Amino acid sequence: MTLLPIIARRRDGGRHSADELRTLAQAAAEGSAPDYQIAAWLMAAYLKPLDEAETADLTLALADSGERLDLSSLPKPWVDKHSTGGVGDKTTLVLLPLLAACGLTMVKMSGRGLGITGGTLDKLASLPGLRLDLSPEELLEIAGRVGFALGGQTARLAPADGALYALRDATGTVASIPLIVASILSKKIAGGAETVVLDVKCGSGAFMRTLPEARELAHWLQRIGERCGLRVRCAVTDMRIPLGAAVGNALEVKEAWDVLSGADMTPPVGRFRDLCLALAGHALEAAGLENRAREVLVSGAAAERFLAWSRAQGATAGPEALPRAGAVRTLVSPRHGWVAGVDAERVGQAVVDLGGGRKTKADEIDPSVGVVVRAAPGTFVRFGDPLLDVHARDRATAMAVATALLPAYAFSDEKTVARPALLEVL
Amino acid sequence: MTLLPIIARRRDGGRHSADELRTLAQAAAEGSAPDYQIAAWLMAAYLKPLDEAETADLTLALADSGERLDLSSLPKPWVDKHSTGGVGDKTTLVLLPLLAACGLTMVKMSGRGLGITGGTLDKLASLPGLRLDLSPEELLEIAGRVGFALGGQTARLAPADGALYALRDATGTVASIPLIVASILSKKIAGGAETVVLDVKCGSGAFMRTLPEARELAHWLQRIGERCGLRVRCAVTDMRIPLGAAVGNALEVKEAWDVLSGADMTPPVGRFRDLCLALAGHALEAAGLENRAREVLVSGAAAERFLAWSRAQGATAGPEALPRAGAVRTLVSPRHGWVAGVDAERVGQAVVDLGGGRKTKADEIDPSVGVVVRAAPGTFVRFGDPLLDVHARDRATAMAVATALLPAYAFSDEKTVARPALLEVL
Repeated sequence: MTLLPIIARRRDGGRHSADELRTLAQAAAEGSAPDYQIAAWLMAAYLKPLDEAETADLTLALADSGERLDLSSLPKPWVDKHSTGGVGDKTTLVLLPLLAACGLTMVKMSGRGLGITGGTLDKLASLPGLRLDLSPEELLEIAGRVGFALGGQTARLAPADGALYALRDATGTVASIPLIVASILSKKIAGGAETVVLDVKCGSGAFMRTLPEARELAHWLQRIGERCGLRVRCAVTDMRIPLGAAVGNALEVKEAWDVLSGADMTPPVGRFRDLCLALAGHALEAAGLENRAREVLVSGAAAERFLAWSRAQGATAGPEALPRAGAVRTLVSPRHGWVAGVDAERVGQAVVDLGGGRKTKADEIDPSVGVVVRAAPGTFVRFGDPLLDVHARDRATAMAVATALLPAYAFSDEKTVARPALLEVL
Repeated sequence: MTLLPIIARRRDGGRHSADELRTLAQAAAEGSAPDYQIAAWLMAAYLKPLDEAETADLTLALADSGERLDLSSLPKPWVDKHSTGGVGDKTTLVLLPLLAACGLTMVKMSGRGLGITGGTLDKLASLPGLRLDLSPEELLEIAGRVGFALGGQTARLAPADGALYALRDATGTVASIPLIVASILSKKIAGGAETVVLDVKCGSGAFMRTLPEARELAHWLQRIGERCGLRVRCAVTDMRIPLGAAVGNALEVKEAWDVLSGADMTPPVGRFRDLCLALAGHALEAAGLENRAREVLVSGAAAERFLAWSRAQGATAGPEALPRAGAVRTLVSPRHGWVAGVDAERVGQAVVDLGGGRKTKADEIDPSVGVVVRAAPGTFVRFGDPLLDVHARDRATAMAVATALLPAYAFSDEKTVARPALLEVL
């Protein structure tokens, strides 16, 4: 198959028909056109962006390039959740059991992490025994029993998106809003959701660095989602500082469990908990259910749901069995003052350097390492007070990384306040 | 090797360093970067064109991606010639022996035809026994003996250009002036020329349809050639009507021979002959030699040089042995009047349809078929006078194609004049 006429139309800034985009998606899914033609189209699409109608057509074409999950055996409402990824973003681990305990059904496909933004699959892989390579049939069965299921992306759903994404990554064409939007939403549609809650992260620890950029992506997600027949709530949330306290795979699962079980209410964790409750509220409202999020959190129903789910997916132990790093060292404050900032990008990069993230797709991850922020913006610290803990393989590494993280901190002589992570909701 | 930083710079409209373009050229030549990365760069270069300095750097990088022919054993001046291709363009077949007879040395690599513009290699392949798959060493040896040699493109010279060209053809990125210029000039530089005569064809039977487009390409060729240290003469020539009378492989070799031997002086052939003499004059002037072109043509020295060259390259017979088509049918004029136009594109397409050109690269060519224009603009025809002859495999095809070519003709009640093919020289 040749994609030349389709490439030429994009190159010349013309408008694609839905049929052309289906042809492209099928070619990508089946490998029936050469990669270099798809790459040329992607660069043309980067430089001559698709309009909204084309983006909606591409989204549906990608969604239909493989199977669609049939959730009809499961109780409605069918909800899915997506975050554009950020440093310390373990929202999925809290939100899914919370919403399941409120009566929503969720079958979620998550990704692996690359660069400073971790991946939910990597985080969960630190739970001993947990299976994440579930078939669509297994996902449906578990979601039917527990209210939610979580697996890796499967080639059976939206295979064209997987092919396009791999080529975008290799050709410098990732950062195109229409392509990002089609990629995100096509997987949600193929996964059977009717309502989606989207979290666009904004700041140094996220893909979108500025609020105008994040807002533009959020608006596109909202509008294209609705064009494709989804009910969409799209939040823009702050990612200038790490979300919560923990950054690193097992440490983040532990923090999610601490929120579910009510074991940790320190300010950074509380800020993360507040975001989970806010997003849960929007999801429940969008799905037309009463907001019982706080109730199921406080009652322990959400925590129970987490344990039931992890057992259903094969976990052989609970969060108490998460792997621990060989050494922990604390960075202490070099001065008195108010914490004004903790740079998410530097913290995320430190965790990658510790071995907790991937520099290339082939890298192995050490689930135990990471950083736990102890003093966040809005905190007054004295000389010698702990700022953060570094969990590393050995003492020397922990000490070196802790010292190197001092420039991540900004201090102020004026009082600072902790600002909520949730900036806007569309 | 990853080309991601180079792709990103092009995509973002930055300026490439010479080193970056060398990296790209080497990757293309060696196949050490994936095709899809090169394709993405090509589309970015199409939509964010290289500037002149970058184009000169790319030209040199392509030229240096393989061997450079060392002409130092041959007498100077070292000249090469290139045409952007047109319907009936057999200029090379006359110009090379003409210039060799005037004392120039030429080692020329030619291409095969695709679409309506024929290729010199295809034309020459109709000469029985002629070898065109010569090694660089054989080309040098023959040029030393006869003054010129002509072969196909070899993977030893400018291999990166071959790789880029194949990908441009498959990704809709052919029509980019900087990429066209770098492709043309890199092969001339790798071939060892110091002076080049370039012929940019303009009109329906050529790649550049309008004079402003052709002029822009000519200016680029001129300026980039000079930046790369070449002496350049660049002509813009008319390709609204076929060049000369014959279109089709053996028919064009025959016509070139008729010009060299002085056997055919009908107006369409005379117009082609005039162009050859004009281009020869510019080549000789650029190379600093006296213009003896007309003299060597009239004396038969150029014709002798053609025969000596064809024997040197293995021809077992002369132009009298060219293959002939099975049937010839004449299209006659349906009216009285002056011929105002003969659409080159329609004639070129008819020859492709007859089997004399390629629709895809894999097509076989029938060397014998083609069209011979008998009445060109400036000619008065009466009802029933011959307009053109169609040479085809059989009578039915010849008749059908002849009839279908009537719309290629435009007539006028006002007197028309034959205009020279040469429009401008830079």
